[in-house]
Amino acid sequence: MREEIAKRFQEIQSHICNNLEKLDGIAKFESDHWERPGGGGGHTRVIQGGKLLDKGGVNFSAVHGVLDDRMAAHLNMKLKDFFATGVSIVLHPNNPHVPIIHMNIRYFEGADGNYWFGGGIDLTPHYVIESQAQEFHKGLKAVCDKYDSTYYPKFKKWADEYFYIKHRAETRGVGGIFFDHLKADENHSKEDLFSFVQDVGMAFYPLYEQQAVLGMNKTFSDEEREWQLIRRGRYVEFNLVYDRGTKFGLETNGRTESILMSLPTDARWMYDYQVEEGSREEETIKLLKKVPAWIS
Amino acid sequence: MREEIAKRFQEIQSHICNNLEKLDGIAKFESDHWERPGGGGGHTRVIQGGKLLDKGGVNFSAVHGVLDDRMAAHLNMKLKDFFATGVSIVLHPNNPHVPIIHMNIRYFEGADGNYWFGGGIDLTPHYVIESQAQEFHKGLKAVCDKYDSTYYPKFKKWADEYFYIKHRAETRGVGGIFFDHLKADENHSKEDLFSFVQDVGMAFYPLYEQQAVLGMNKTFSDEEREWQLIRRGRYVEFNLVYDRGTKFGLETNGRTESILMSLPTDARWMYDYQVEEGSREEETIKLLKKVPAWIS
Repeated sequence: MREEIAKRFQEIQSHICNNLEKLDGIAKFESDHWERPGGGGGHTRVIQGGKLLDKGGVNFSAVHGVLDDRMAAHLNMKLKDFFATGVSIVLHPNNPHVPIIHMNIRYFEGADGNYWFGGGIDLTPHYVIESQAQEFHKGLKAVCDKYDSTYYPKFKKWADEYFYIKHRAETRGVGGIFFDHLKADENHSKEDLFSFVQDVGMAFYPLYEQQAVLGMNKTFSDEEREWQLIRRGRYVEFNLVYDRGTKFGLETNGRTESILMSLPTDARWMYDYQVEEGSREEETIKLLKKVPAWIS
Repeated sequence: MREEIAKRFQEIQSHICNNLEKLDGIAKFESDHWERPGGGGGHTRVIQGGKLLDKGGVNFSAVHGVLDDRMAAHLNMKLKDFFATGVSIVLHPNNPHVPIIHMNIRYFEGADGNYWFGGGIDLTPHYVIESQAQEFHKGLKAVCDKYDSTYYPKFKKWADEYFYIKHRAETRGVGGIFFDHLKADENHSKEDLFSFVQDVGMAFYPLYEQQAVLGMNKTFSDEEREWQLIRRGRYVEFNLVYDRGTKFGLETNGRTESILMSLPTDARWMYDYQVEEGSREEETIKLLKKVPAWIS
């Protein structure tokens, strides 16, 4: 089954890249095929300098090998041979009125027959617009509800906890869904879970397009651009300080350029930057500290 | 003695800020006094938008409190009351021909009478010039040799190991000195060590001035500016992924703005950026991968 999963993940990568190129209208994805010294490899696709997309990465990998003792103990694995495949995306738009978005779907398998699926999609608007956050969450709930009515509330909460910048006491964005260690049980076969993860992957593009078209043709001021750079700085902070995929990748000698393609082109840090009272920037910060339910 | 150390550290902070303002000629330091909920506080001074300095932070803190179990175990302390004071500096210049510089001096004391000094200075040129790296190391060696001829070789090696960006397989810059857990022994009294640490603090400004005046009036191209932004990106990577002070600060709920004042205003990440063969950028990368002795 692992070959089938990896094949399907690659198809999802192509589907997303093809659609993003059409949406952008100008830039094309570069393509890097790479091999991992320990086993397997990947296909990194990056788009830069587009009309919509300042920088976007859509990475596929399927790697195998032997985990070191520490990692095997951490994952509670007796046998240390593993196989892992996934698709991972981060898109940074030019326009501050278009959100940053992230998606990941992944499958992990150990030699002892142990396996799980994981994944998630989350949205990081530079300016939070409540109706747009609601639409986004409605779309995610629809995908989840097809499989299990407990998924959306559980995975929404998981995303709120995961995409949290502790030292800023704010969430990275308006959240979304996050899930990990999904295994077959009495309610869901392995095929069901694989189907769910594919649906998450296929939901990514329409959900992003819905957000992008609402903002990509808006004009923006220098102040709005600066705010975007500062929010990108927070994104860098989350990814380098907290993100488990980034840390795991850097610690296990993953391909640095593929791991760090999630970072924006330009980011900015101003000492003790304060938003103006009553401004849209302040409203955004308030919503990132509040962690709303978004939909009932 | 702890009050004396904290007092002297504050004087060193003032000395450095006064001199940097004169050297910059335009910008002035802002001043933030802050208190730590657990005990003590600090004085953060930040300069932004200067002629020489794009962004620079000179932080003093003197905090006390009770360590949590994990941290106490990590530091091998029976009693968990602690006192810590230090000065910490990072300067980001406007001109890519002026290096980024970092300095830190610190004193830690436990309730059981256990104490140590630590510190270091290291230089991160955007463009490495061998003669300038040599001058810098000569200056540091002179400070060290006044106290112990084993200090410079030992602390230079420590800096090379500490200021290393593992996932890039390159050092942060041309190194300098780094030391920690310095306690009195048969060769050095506590007063000697305090004197050494003060000398490190007082050596900072002249060493930086020497570097700054060589580059601050040079013109630079858009390509050189872009290279500076990319090297600043590496600085962000080091500080957020590896720097112990940053991690310790963020994990122990330190004052985020004071901890992250080390980050540059603007930084950039380009996917798989490649330097041109035979360029000065390539020469810099080669020297950062080689880790030269600089002086014999």
